[in-house]
Amino acid sequence: MADVSEDCPPSTSRRTAPSESLSAAFDPTLFRKNSEAVAARLESYLADPSVRGLRLSEPGVLSRAARALMTTEREGVADFDENRLAAIVDLYVRTGIQVHSPGYMGRQFSGTVPLAGVIDFVSSVVNQPSSYYEAGQLPAMAERIMADELNRFIGWDPGGFAMVTTSGGSLANLTALLAARNRAHPGIWARGEPGGRGRPAIAVGEDVHYSVTRAAGVLGIGETQIVRLPVDAQGRIAARLVPGLLAAAERRGLQVFCLVASAGTTALGAFDPIDELAAITARRGIWLHVDGAHGASLLVSDALRHKLRGIDRADSLTWDAHKMLFVPAPCTLLFYRDARDAPGAFRRSTASYVSDEEPDAHCEFDSGDRNLECTKRPMIMPLWTLWAMYGRVLFAEKIEHLCRMTQEAHAILLDEPDFEVLHRPEANIMCFRYRPVGVAEERLHRLQLRIRKQIRLAGRFFISKVDVQGTAALRVVLMNHQIGPEHFRDLLAEIRGTGDRLLRDGGLD
Amino acid sequence: MADVSEDCPPSTSRRTAPSESLSAAFDPTLFRKNSEAVAARLESYLADPSVRGLRLSEPGVLSRAARALMTTEREGVADFDENRLAAIVDLYVRTGIQVHSPGYMGRQFSGTVPLAGVIDFVSSVVNQPSSYYEAGQLPAMAERIMADELNRFIGWDPGGFAMVTTSGGSLANLTALLAARNRAHPGIWARGEPGGRGRPAIAVGEDVHYSVTRAAGVLGIGETQIVRLPVDAQGRIAARLVPGLLAAAERRGLQVFCLVASAGTTALGAFDPIDELAAITARRGIWLHVDGAHGASLLVSDALRHKLRGIDRADSLTWDAHKMLFVPAPCTLLFYRDARDAPGAFRRSTASYVSDEEPDAHCEFDSGDRNLECTKRPMIMPLWTLWAMYGRVLFAEKIEHLCRMTQEAHAILLDEPDFEVLHRPEANIMCFRYRPVGVAEERLHRLQLRIRKQIRLAGRFFISKVDVQGTAALRVVLMNHQIGPEHFRDLLAEIRGTGDRLLRDGGLD
Repeated sequence: MADVSEDCPPSTSRRTAPSESLSAAFDPTLFRKNSEAVAARLESYLADPSVRGLRLSEPGVLSRAARALMTTEREGVADFDENRLAAIVDLYVRTGIQVHSPGYMGRQFSGTVPLAGVIDFVSSVVNQPSSYYEAGQLPAMAERIMADELNRFIGWDPGGFAMVTTSGGSLANLTALLAARNRAHPGIWARGEPGGRGRPAIAVGEDVHYSVTRAAGVLGIGETQIVRLPVDAQGRIAARLVPGLLAAAERRGLQVFCLVASAGTTALGAFDPIDELAAITARRGIWLHVDGAHGASLLVSDALRHKLRGIDRADSLTWDAHKMLFVPAPCTLLFYRDARDAPGAFRRSTASYVSDEEPDAHCEFDSGDRNLECTKRPMIMPLWTLWAMYGRVLFAEKIEHLCRMTQEAHAILLDEPDFEVLHRPEANIMCFRYRPVGVAEERLHRLQLRIRKQIRLAGRFFISKVDVQGTAALRVVLMNHQIGPEHFRDLLAEIRGTGDRLLRDGGLD
Repeated sequence: MADVSEDCPPSTSRRTAPSESLSAAFDPTLFRKNSEAVAARLESYLADPSVRGLRLSEPGVLSRAARALMTTEREGVADFDENRLAAIVDLYVRTGIQVHSPGYMGRQFSGTVPLAGVIDFVSSVVNQPSSYYEAGQLPAMAERIMADELNRFIGWDPGGFAMVTTSGGSLANLTALLAARNRAHPGIWARGEPGGRGRPAIAVGEDVHYSVTRAAGVLGIGETQIVRLPVDAQGRIAARLVPGLLAAAERRGLQVFCLVASAGTTALGAFDPIDELAAITARRGIWLHVDGAHGASLLVSDALRHKLRGIDRADSLTWDAHKMLFVPAPCTLLFYRDARDAPGAFRRSTASYVSDEEPDAHCEFDSGDRNLECTKRPMIMPLWTLWAMYGRVLFAEKIEHLCRMTQEAHAILLDEPDFEVLHRPEANIMCFRYRPVGVAEERLHRLQLRIRKQIRLAGRFFISKVDVQGTAALRVVLMNHQIGPEHFRDLLAEIRGTGDRLLRDGGLD
């Protein structure tokens, strides 16, 4: 292989000066100008009160629009084209899901508190990774502070628990399962062999998030080793059935090392009975992991905290701050009741280029050995800053407002006889069907699918769909406090109009 | 469990109006004001030409400073305290690693191109996740465009390859190994049993990144199932030894399903001979994964591309854009030569709330089933925007400049007899030792460790350390084009002064 020195002409005194165009791309004044233009654009975006879903573009059309904005050959920074940048930003803002509009009721990502975006902006420029104290001191400290603040609502021993931030709930669930697997089956890490008294297995609620069942495949446990726990009509794990199912699994030669409960299932927003499940797992020495990606945030509300009763007895908890704490995605917090379990997820720690052979007071704040990530965004900073500037109350108020609004939407729905109400919402997620008299059972599924697609295309509202007991349902997730009952009533009217049109015009075939 | 309706007083017409303080936190005017203040602060940060490493704070001191900036009780948004926000931003900027200063020579994260930060700012506010086309149309399209743009330098069949973005190189390496494992040993995913003709194993260079060996533990392959391939004096896998080692592994009952080469090792920045390794893996039907987290970016340079000769014959490639493409972390691109391998990493795709039962033209652009993440930051947007606005040349210029500068630093070092040069740098990473005449072999290791710590404490330069053949070495990574030979000479002078002081004053005991 050729040596790199071949590529580099011999040294001259001018050689190492960066080119003018390179320096121009790093020009601080240009940076500020661009930032201010973008801030102005985002201000109008945030101030736009219109009710809108999304403008769906044909991929081919969007591709041409995007490619038309790209420089074909170097045009030089002297020609930095502000109009082109404005067009890019505009296309970006316009074609996205409109999380800050009341027409957005479709998913669990949120219209972020604007200040969170401002701090995230700082992160994007100063680029401090947060796995090692020396690289990002304030993020490391902010993680510790937020861990303490939030643990007040979990209730674990303040001196004994641990928290790490990670890139999304799926990775957090995987990490927790890994810690649990390694505790119960240490031989897998080293030799790829479980050892132990049975085949490693996990038990999960039927409605658990797909990242959990996937994790069994990833970790080499095997998806067929999953014990599925039935849920009741409200979508909660039927705790009374669990001991029998665990005993049966054991008789089949499985060693269930982890039970995963959900605090806010994705489909229905249902809260599994953590306290009852904790009693069962404690008796059997099974790790209890709670996937609270969506619902853990209810802990910060005095009025809603009881939904997670028993959380102080869980072994680990996934908590997405980018859902109900309203910060940019991803910002996931993974809590361990026993701090000693945290490094257990990744047995072999790290390498000489990142780990410190002569540890000092700072190393205690390093998190690299407890994270799958090596370089990691300082994702805690928006959350900590919001918490610092506004306090807990901002979050509690918004969450309570959203849950109240969902109750109100539920009440509205109960008064509409052509809608089928599938459950009483526990948080801010609600599923239902449009089901006017005379729709045959076998057309119900497709009717919901088509309604959802039509609504999306119309572009005024954005909702989602989910299968509930095998049949598609419409699903709203109220993440925006600007949504009022009038918006929900408008949505129902649009669903009704759309559904009737589909039924009338043969749009279901 | 209590019903949520208990928490919610009965409906009144006023009930659903959000509180004034909640609305105030979302005020667009306040947002713009805060953004402009932050942009001004970042402008001075970027314009600061001073040579600085990091200001290391005692954790206790920093903790008190951070806590002092937090609201203790709700103070109301009417009182939004701009001074406090300014103090938070200031503390954040000040205590971080100074990636934009020429004193920063320590790690692989970069001073981002400022425009990348501006676009990332948009992402933080509009919050479009990028796993599904409908949620973030432009990010989905930008991923496709950047995949095509970058594949021009990889050289795979434009109609047959695939690329996904993911949260960091460690996760990308894990994902590639998972795809390789699932192809060779499909039984692991389903049943936790390898099947096949031997125990699943991977082969890696001795200097491979720790995330790869860790992945063997995570995936249930077992760390002891790793076949370690020796490297030559330049830190490259000694290809001529590989066939024999693979044959020996097979005789021991191992089935090596993946060989991982590095394009830019973390320690030395060495490039494994991909072409020679590809010839070996092709003969044996072994998946060749290239961890190009650091060095894949050299592909965009006409002068340096040859370092990855043979990359067109690899099966997958990890490429961190947050390293040598100078965008905020994380932005990792994982490429598969054969697009059909991409969904193989995660067998069971997703769930009804995210997947589309009646696929349309948009679904082709969904990436959720090829990613561990469900919600995922639109990390491609800063990269695509830079590429759109500046073209390839910006990246090529900067990378070539950094590699030339490293060559120049190497030449400077060769002229200093009290420094030990450990290798000829292939890219922008260089390791060396301070080794004046008369230092006993057994004190050499500790001398480097202590020098590095002292330099860090002094706060003018930031460098890293790594073990090279069992003995600590000093390591510079030149990520900043503002670093000139004068800065490197200053660094050497400071190392010499520090080392001599340590040797004289007994600072090694």
